[in-house]
Amino acid sequence: MTTLAITGGQVLHPDITVSRADVLIDQDSGEILEIGADLAGDADETLDASDSLVTPGFANGHSHVAMTLLRGVADDKPLDAWLQEDIWPVEAELTAEDIRVGTELGILEMIKSGTTAFSDMYFEVDEIAAVVEEAGVRAVLGHTAITVGKDDDGAHADLEQSLEVAIDLDGAADGRISTTFQPHSLTTVGGEYLEEYVPKAREAGLPIHFHANETEHEVSPIVDEHGVRPLEYAVEKGLLESEDFIAHGVHVDETEIELLAETGASVIHCPASNMKLASGMAPVQQLRDAGVTVGLGTDGAASNNDLSMLDEARDAAMIGKLAADDASAVPADAVAEMMTQGSADAMGLESGRLEAGAPADLAVIDLETPHLTPRHDLVSHLAYAAAAADVKHTICDGQVLMRDREVLTLDAQAVRERAQETAESLLSRANSA
Amino acid sequence: MTTLAITGGQVLHPDITVSRADVLIDQDSGEILEIGADLAGDADETLDASDSLVTPGFANGHSHVAMTLLRGVADDKPLDAWLQEDIWPVEAELTAEDIRVGTELGILEMIKSGTTAFSDMYFEVDEIAAVVEEAGVRAVLGHTAITVGKDDDGAHADLEQSLEVAIDLDGAADGRISTTFQPHSLTTVGGEYLEEYVPKAREAGLPIHFHANETEHEVSPIVDEHGVRPLEYAVEKGLLESEDFIAHGVHVDETEIELLAETGASVIHCPASNMKLASGMAPVQQLRDAGVTVGLGTDGAASNNDLSMLDEARDAAMIGKLAADDASAVPADAVAEMMTQGSADAMGLESGRLEAGAPADLAVIDLETPHLTPRHDLVSHLAYAAAAADVKHTICDGQVLMRDREVLTLDAQAVRERAQETAESLLSRANSA
Ligand SMILES: [Zn+2]
Ligand SMILES: [Zn+2]
Repeated sequence: MTTLAITGGQVLHPDITVSRADVLIDQDSGEILEIGADLAGDADETLDASDSLVTPGFANGHSHVAMTLLRGVADDKPLDAWLQEDIWPVEAELTAEDIRVGTELGILEMIKSGTTAFSDMYFEVDEIAAVVEEAGVRAVLGHTAITVGKDDDGAHADLEQSLEVAIDLDGAADGRISTTFQPHSLTTVGGEYLEEYVPKAREAGLPIHFHANETEHEVSPIVDEHGVRPLEYAVEKGLLESEDFIAHGVHVDETEIELLAETGASVIHCPASNMKLASGMAPVQQLRDAGVTVGLGTDGAASNNDLSMLDEARDAAMIGKLAADDASAVPADAVAEMMTQGSADAMGLESGRLEAGAPADLAVIDLETPHLTPRHDLVSHLAYAAAAADVKHTICDGQVLMRDREVLTLDAQAVRERAQETAESLLSRANSA
Repeated sequence: MTTLAITGGQVLHPDITVSRADVLIDQDSGEILEIGADLAGDADETLDASDSLVTPGFANGHSHVAMTLLRGVADDKPLDAWLQEDIWPVEAELTAEDIRVGTELGILEMIKSGTTAFSDMYFEVDEIAAVVEEAGVRAVLGHTAITVGKDDDGAHADLEQSLEVAIDLDGAADGRISTTFQPHSLTTVGGEYLEEYVPKAREAGLPIHFHANETEHEVSPIVDEHGVRPLEYAVEKGLLESEDFIAHGVHVDETEIELLAETGASVIHCPASNMKLASGMAPVQQLRDAGVTVGLGTDGAASNNDLSMLDEARDAAMIGKLAADDASAVPADAVAEMMTQGSADAMGLESGRLEAGAPADLAVIDLETPHLTPRHDLVSHLAYAAAAADVKHTICDGQVLMRDREVLTLDAQAVRERAQETAESLLSRANSA
């Protein structure tokens, strides 16, 4: 057994309290062996966490990771125009190689900001999986299917691919990759296709990850056509089982909140994207009060514009208060829970809690900085003041992915240079198309 | 003449465009000599800005800098309860020495995040001025007067002190300190006192900085008692001249926006504080459309919880879109303008624009990081993706305050240690009081 000890840190426990403890990890199984005093003993390797906060690795519940290539390409536009005028035309030019490069950049940024798992919706998923394998993170992957604008053959092909990719990749990268079936949203995949494919996904044992209730424009067409709210419609189509999770859930009414609570389906809240696209404010406190599992996600970098879960945490606390018109809503401990166990539970991962037997997925946050001084309340610091650059070590599946701010599994400079070249070439192709 | 050249960077120009240029500074006068190609020549000192964005030093238009000691002490509470139950009882225990230590911590954090000027409302202002002098930043200081809860002698004493401090400190620290007269707010300073002291402030040539229209609770008592909106009331009391600026301006109606535009008084928007205290969303796009000068401020660290203007920039873009229900509102270039020239103009400073003859107040942002890759649009990166830790050099008044992320004018570790001790002692005194 090869062991790694993380020593001298302040550990965030599953009940969102913090106390001084060491963490002993079995690197062979990738699991936490013990959390307690003086565990350095004869560990094969030691990582210093003194003057640091040791948290579960952050779990990014909703991303389109390769969209890092489009960071800053089209800001300050609403969702529909942004997708149709800017994003989709460029995405039409994306090659498998582009997606690989964009994924490298995204995962590099995630490791640097303490994220050890992400749940992605995109295409050319083999490329994404290859980078996940190389970089050492955990991911819930899938091919996102859209049927609007396609003929019946095209629609079937896309949905079949979503099924096949999810079946094929499940368990890849030594089990660090799991998968979901991914109808893009309730308005971009036709109802007849949902009726045909949701049962197939169930048969294959696949959780379903889809966008829902992000903007008002997504709600009214369903209400108009079907006479029910979108999440009622989702249930009619066989969606919203307990292992499923929706991205956004901004415009959900009380019936839909109740439905989420009853079904056990989860919501991935993406506050930065919801603000940047002026989509609205998700009723996060109400969702939590109803017992719904809420995780946090960054969405793509083009609508954020970064992939730091620490930014998402702060945003969630901030917008959650405005949404509830109550400064006590979505407090720091709720945020700390959502960015770790909330997301992990939604994504069907065992990580998200630091305890014996859990996957050894951790982030170590350096507290020796002015903006994390004084140390009255480290949970407050995690929610409100810590930033990506404060993360000094990132560990996933027991392996050290970043030590002293140096990422070990990706060549940071090469990744950045490739991303710059690739992004320039992509935009010039899209502009001349 | 001693010269400093900042070479090889991408410079943010006053019209919020970016192009490659060197910046040549006269360190004796503290002014920018020239911006253009190949200015390194025989400069006495050179700072490398290759792969970096060179911006005006950020101007924090509204702060209570010593409140860094209370960072994380009382989160997740609305303004009134937060002030009365948590902040004021602790502030009652603050000594001059505490304020000095808290100010050191705050200024250290500001220099590290590229802020070169701040406009502060607090007390024990001599202590704050001493740290400003030592640290090399620029500041608009003042003693904040409150009359509610005081007898007439106490009220007069506080207001006299606000006048005296502003008159005495104006021009201190080689001109880096200017001052304002500071009635705390329209509800915490009685109308009769405003009538008495505002003319005295005018006579002394002092701009006036006060809180206004932060929460609904601040608006209704004035409407009820005086039958006019708070800013109409302010004008009746002689406030809102063109050199004055208000903090917040969240709950302003169209009449008040018009009044701000007509008078030329400015608004310091504090998005993080407004979200965290659930105060509301300032109509920033409407204010800008009406021609009102809008700057950005962090407010105190206890309601933020950091002092990075880069966080404030992102927050302003985000909440500005929600407030306007329009993703094109408060775009990246507006944010870049507000955090530099908007705040500087509001504060009556000559800085905020990089041009020949302007004060040499600059921040240099390192772009060699995944979250600022690719470089499609550096104004977008400034508004949405850059973070405090990306700032590598900070220059104020021609002097290098931080080089390669090392603050030269304050001992960072000693400041942090003093702040931790002081904060602990302060809270234990407050708890036993
Ligand atoms: Zn999405
Ligand atoms: Zn204030």
